Amino acid sequence: MITAVAGGVGAARLLRGLVRVVDPTDVTAVVNTGDDTVLHGLHISPDLDTVMYTLAGRNDEERGWGLAGETWAVMDALHQLGGESWFRLGDRDLATHLYRTQRMSEGAALSAVTAELAERTGVRVRLLPMTDAAVRTRLVLSESGAEVAFQEYFVRLRHEVAVRAVRFQGADLATPGPGVLDAIVQAEVVIVCPSNPVLSLGPVLAVPDILDAIRGRRDHVVAVSPIVAGAAIKGPADRLLKELGEEPTAVGVARRYSSFAGTLVIDEADAAHAPEIEALEVRCVVAPTIMHGPEEAARLAAVVLDAGRHGPGRRSRDHSSRVP
Amino acid sequence: MITAVAGGVGAARLLRGLVRVVDPTDVTAVVNTGDDTVLHGLHISPDLDTVMYTLAGRNDEERGWGLAGETWAVMDALHQLGGESWFRLGDRDLATHLYRTQRMSEGAALSAVTAELAERTGVRVRLLPMTDAAVRTRLVLSESGAEVAFQEYFVRLRHEVAVRAVRFQGADLATPGPGVLDAIVQAEVVIVCPSNPVLSLGPVLAVPDILDAIRGRRDHVVAVSPIVAGAAIKGPADRLLKELGEEPTAVGVARRYSSFAGTLVIDEADAAHAPEIEALEVRCVVAPTIMHGPEEAARLAAVVLDAGRHGPGRRSRDHSSRVP
Repeated sequence: MITAVAGGVGAARLLRGLVRVVDPTDVTAVVNTGDDTVLHGLHISPDLDTVMYTLAGRNDEERGWGLAGETWAVMDALHQLGGESWFRLGDRDLATHLYRTQRMSEGAALSAVTAELAERTGVRVRLLPMTDAAVRTRLVLSESGAEVAFQEYFVRLRHEVAVRAVRFQGADLATPGPGVLDAIVQAEVVIVCPSNPVLSLGPVLAVPDILDAIRGRRDHVVAVSPIVAGAAIKGPADRLLKELGEEPTAVGVARRYSSFAGTLVIDEADAAHAPEIEALEVRCVVAPTIMHGPEEAARLAAVVLDAGRHGPGRRSRDHSSRVP
Repeated sequence: MITAVAGGVGAARLLRGLVRVVDPTDVTAVVNTGDDTVLHGLHISPDLDTVMYTLAGRNDEERGWGLAGETWAVMDALHQLGGESWFRLGDRDLATHLYRTQRMSEGAALSAVTAELAERTGVRVRLLPMTDAAVRTRLVLSESGAEVAFQEYFVRLRHEVAVRAVRFQGADLATPGPGVLDAIVQAEVVIVCPSNPVLSLGPVLAVPDILDAIRGRRDHVVAVSPIVAGAAIKGPADRLLKELGEEPTAVGVARRYSSFAGTLVIDEADAAHAPEIEALEVRCVVAPTIMHGPEEAARLAAVVLDAGRHGPGRRSRDHSSRVP
């Protein structure tokens, strides 16, 4: 059994590769819900949906979010009414939110609804929200000092503003969702996907029991750096790390992850950083990490699995290994 | 100023005629909200929307509900997900519900949101929900004794089941919405639209202060019978009256309305009932009441206005008057 700790797009891509090299039913994804929001009365779980749509082969590759072949009748009409249409919800995507909201209003937990949606969209990977509790990522803007909700920052402000601090409201009191701890404890390999370390993985690791469980599996935890050559593959991770006083490089990621990840996979472009990373007692594996398509994702997944299956000792004497 | 107490389709048709004979800005519609429901997390106000869409000229004439030129991408996708799709919500209609739900989640009252929506759809009639409180029409089914919500009965069960009792949950404690009492007290004529007497007007009149206010204007209240020749023009009003032990005729309507309506407009087909109705001390006006189009609606509105402007004394000695 393989367990992946996942944010949105980057995680979805790696998972799409992973299911090419292992049976999807052997894979569990523990997915960030810190981005979840209620808008127009609808419960929206962006990362769960990105992972689900991608694994169902229904995601829009070009746009990078939402469903392929989507239409926008509702949003267009809402815009004409003068409603809040900055958070674009496609017509088919809306059906997911209507389904989720209806079921949750009937008392179903997010985890139960997620399982229903995954089954109905043909996703065989087990999708687990990190928690059924409400954890909300909030950001303090540098200039104004105002605290805004995640989607306000990410979508409305297009993450173009500087951030002074990030907090995960509710995380300290949240318990992991059903199955989450078992999935971590029992996994052969725990993969920390190449997602935004602050905004996507931060909320998951802010749930104390999840962080403890992952720390307990450190030798079997393989993280993939989302920072390549000092820049995020997608999104504001690099800028954000810098704004928070961390190093926006693979080394910065290693530093952030060193307490729970025994191995970090970094891109070939960052091979020179390997000694610095190993000095943090994080084994470093160098591989191509940019996933242009499912083939590359599958190759990266194979590297990650191999690294996890041959994990480092707690004080590794391995040298960084280059995987072809 | 003219005030109309309104349900859905029948009321909307009469209002569309009314605005051809008086300035729309002189008209206030006090609209039933007993049909309101929360589905998929969305606040849906079917009668308010029917009146609004019709006055905006955007209603679907053939289908009899919703918007013309509507599309169904969301519902189709929801159906594929196995979600509850028996209550059909078109894509453009959904935008109305998203707008309303978002604004209400921000703390806006239904009355405030209704005014915003009316303005944004170009409706110049003042639309007032009967109350900002939650009043919910519920029906006790004859066979099972089960109590169901209005939309469950009306849409899911297609009003094909017998009903033993109707109640308006919350009505006894509800206060009229902002402007409602003034609109009734100050109106030159109060029109009780040809809506279902039990299901559409019942909830409005179940709000004690509204009923009292309308009773106080009895001489200026003109109701239009929705029952013609013993049958409802649309919907289950006739069957329902019968199931509740009332007479499914214009006379039954007069009996139900006699405490607050000084005048009842009945259809030519029911002219023979006039003496029975007058015997209830309700002045009877006979006119064509079936509105196939706006022209007929305007003619009926003119009859209603004329009757209201020349109201009966409390003990009318008029005879039923036939208006061409």
